[in-house]
Amino acid sequence: MKLVSFQKENEVRTGLIQHDLVIDLYEATDGKLPKDILALMGRGGGALETIADLGPFSEGGKGVILLEDATLKAPIPIPVSIRDFYAFEEHVRTARRKRGLDVVPEWYDVPVFYFTNHLAVKGPDEAVAGPAESEWLDYELEIACVIGKEGRNIAKEDAEDHIFGYFIMNDWSARDIQKHEMKVGLGPAKGKDFATSFGPYLVTKDELETRRLGDRFDMKMTAKVNGKLLSEGNFKDIHYTFADMIERASKDVTLYPGEVIGSGTVGTGCILELGTETHRWLRAGDEVELEIEGLGVLRNTVAGTREEEKDVLPQNGENTTQTSHHV
Amino acid sequence: MKLVSFQKENEVRTGLIQHDLVIDLYEATDGKLPKDILALMGRGGGALETIADLGPFSEGGKGVILLEDATLKAPIPIPVSIRDFYAFEEHVRTARRKRGLDVVPEWYDVPVFYFTNHLAVKGPDEAVAGPAESEWLDYELEIACVIGKEGRNIAKEDAEDHIFGYFIMNDWSARDIQKHEMKVGLGPAKGKDFATSFGPYLVTKDELETRRLGDRFDMKMTAKVNGKLLSEGNFKDIHYTFADMIERASKDVTLYPGEVIGSGTVGTGCILELGTETHRWLRAGDEVELEIEGLGVLRNTVAGTREEEKDVLPQNGENTTQTSHHV
Repeated sequence: MKLVSFQKENEVRTGLIQHDLVIDLYEATDGKLPKDILALMGRGGGALETIADLGPFSEGGKGVILLEDATLKAPIPIPVSIRDFYAFEEHVRTARRKRGLDVVPEWYDVPVFYFTNHLAVKGPDEAVAGPAESEWLDYELEIACVIGKEGRNIAKEDAEDHIFGYFIMNDWSARDIQKHEMKVGLGPAKGKDFATSFGPYLVTKDELETRRLGDRFDMKMTAKVNGKLLSEGNFKDIHYTFADMIERASKDVTLYPGEVIGSGTVGTGCILELGTETHRWLRAGDEVELEIEGLGVLRNTVAGTREEEKDVLPQNGENTTQTSHHV
Repeated sequence: MKLVSFQKENEVRTGLIQHDLVIDLYEATDGKLPKDILALMGRGGGALETIADLGPFSEGGKGVILLEDATLKAPIPIPVSIRDFYAFEEHVRTARRKRGLDVVPEWYDVPVFYFTNHLAVKGPDEAVAGPAESEWLDYELEIACVIGKEGRNIAKEDAEDHIFGYFIMNDWSARDIQKHEMKVGLGPAKGKDFATSFGPYLVTKDELETRRLGDRFDMKMTAKVNGKLLSEGNFKDIHYTFADMIERASKDVTLYPGEVIGSGTVGTGCILELGTETHRWLRAGDEVELEIEGLGVLRNTVAGTREEEKDVLPQNGENTTQTSHHV
C-alpha cells in the first residue's frame, strides 16, 4: 500500500495511491478514517484493514483525484522525531578514510545515531535551500522507516512489528558547517537542521516482502544530480538492520508512532564520499533525484538562498547556474 | 509570573502559582484560556495579559488548589523539540581537560548544540531511571528557555522577544554510553536520551529583569546530591547568551513556540567535571536537587532499573543503597 500526504485547500490529507489516482481517505470513507497520517497510523492495523477493503476506485469517484493533479507533501509532513543512524559500513569507512581515519572498533559494537530537526521536513518536488553561509551543500541517499506502534526495550526479533512503513530520505547536509561544528565535539546539528526531505510516498512494510533476503531487502538505491548517476548502492548491504536500530533506539526509551528512523547514507550516497573531483558541491538550480526500488523517486531542486543567487535564478527554478559554480 | 503544568484527573492543566496556591487557568477563566501550556503560549502576549488581569485568588475559589496538593508535571511536559547548547566556557574547558584536550578554537566562533529526545521529559519529584547498562549516571545543571514566538533568522538583538520564559533543566547523562558512542563521531544521543527533567515551574521572562546585568542575569546555580552541595555557578558567567543561541539556532531554520533551548552545563555542574574522587556516579535512591535563584528547586530521585536493584530498593525509594556502590 502506498500512502501520501497531499494539499487539499488549507489542509493536508492522507491519500492512497492506486495507479494514476490518489484517493482522499477521509473523504472516501465519509470521515471514518482521519485526515492526518499520524492520526491514521495511531489507529494501528485496523486502519490498514479498512483501507484494504475500500475500492475499486475510478476517476470522478468520491475523493478520487488524478495523481498528476495532486500536490504531494512529505508522506509524514511533521514527524514526531527523526533519529538518523550510521548503518552502512561503506559510507562510514569512506567518510573516515577521507579524514585519514579508520573505522573505530566501537562502530561495530552498537548502531549509533543523532537526532535531527523534525520541523524542517520537505516533500517531493519541494525546493530545498541550503544555509546562506554554506558553500558545500550535499545530499545523502538514505532509506527511512516510521514507527507505527509504541514500544520500549523492543527486542530485535520483535522490531518489525513496530515498523509502519518505509520511504526515501534525503538528509541534506552543509558539509562546511558540519565540519566546523563537529570539531567542538557535538553534532552534527546545524550542518543538517535546515532540511530533510521524505517521499514521494510511504510504502507499508508488507509491500517489501517480495524483495526480502533473510533479514534484509534487495532494493537498489541510486542518486542522480541533473540526470547524471552519481550514487549506486543497495539496501541489502546495510550492516545494521532497522531491527537492530529499533532495538538500540528503544533501549530504556519509549518509541512512539510517527517517530522516523533514518538508515544513514548508503555507500557512495553523497558527494562527500565521491569527492568533489567526481562532482562539485550542490548549487542553486541543481536537481537531485534519489531512487530506491519499490519506494519511487524523491526529486528536489536546490533553491537559491543568497541575494545574488536569487538575482540570477529564473523564477521557475530552471537549472541555468549549474555550470557557473564549480568548486 | 510562575506557570506550571499539573495533573488533574486524566488531563494535564496549566496553572498559575500564587504564593501557596495553584490556579487552574482553564477553570478559573471558564475555558477562555486553554488547558495546555503549549496552546497558551501559542496565543502570545495576549494570554499573559489575560492572566495578569485575573485574581485576587483565595483558597476555595474557582479552580484554586493548594500547591502542596498539586501533582506537578514538567512545566512543558512534551516540548516541541530540545536543542542543548554548550555555552559555559568553564564546563567545556574542564570536560575537555579531563580528556587531555584544550578548548578548540572553533568553540569561540559560534555556539554549537545537539538535539536531544523531547519525548522523555520528566517533571519535578519524578523518579528518573538511568539506562540499565550504565554504571556512570550523572546530572547536568542547566538553565533552559522556551520559545514563545515563531521566527527565522532572528538577529541577536531581537532574540529576547522570542523567549517566553525560563526553567531549570537537568540533562541526565549516562557517561559510559556517551563516551562509547561519541568515539564513533556522532552524538551525544543514546547517552542522553533516556531522561531530561524540567521544573519545578516556568518563570516568564519579565520576572528576570530585577536580576539583569547588561545582557546577562545574576542568578546563582547550585546542585546538591543527597543534601551535599556539589556544584556552584552563576548564569551570569555564560559565554554565549540565549540571544546568541537563538540567533544561531534560527539561522536558516524556523523556530516555533514550544521549542526548548538548554544552556549546557554551568561550570562544576556535573560529576564528570568534579571527578569521581569528589563524588561517585549516581545510583538508585540518590536525590538530586538543582537550584537556580528565581527559578526554584528541581528535585528528582534516581530510580532503580536493574532487577537486582529493584530487589534491594525499598518501595518508597529511600536512599539505602548509596554507600554500597562507590565507584
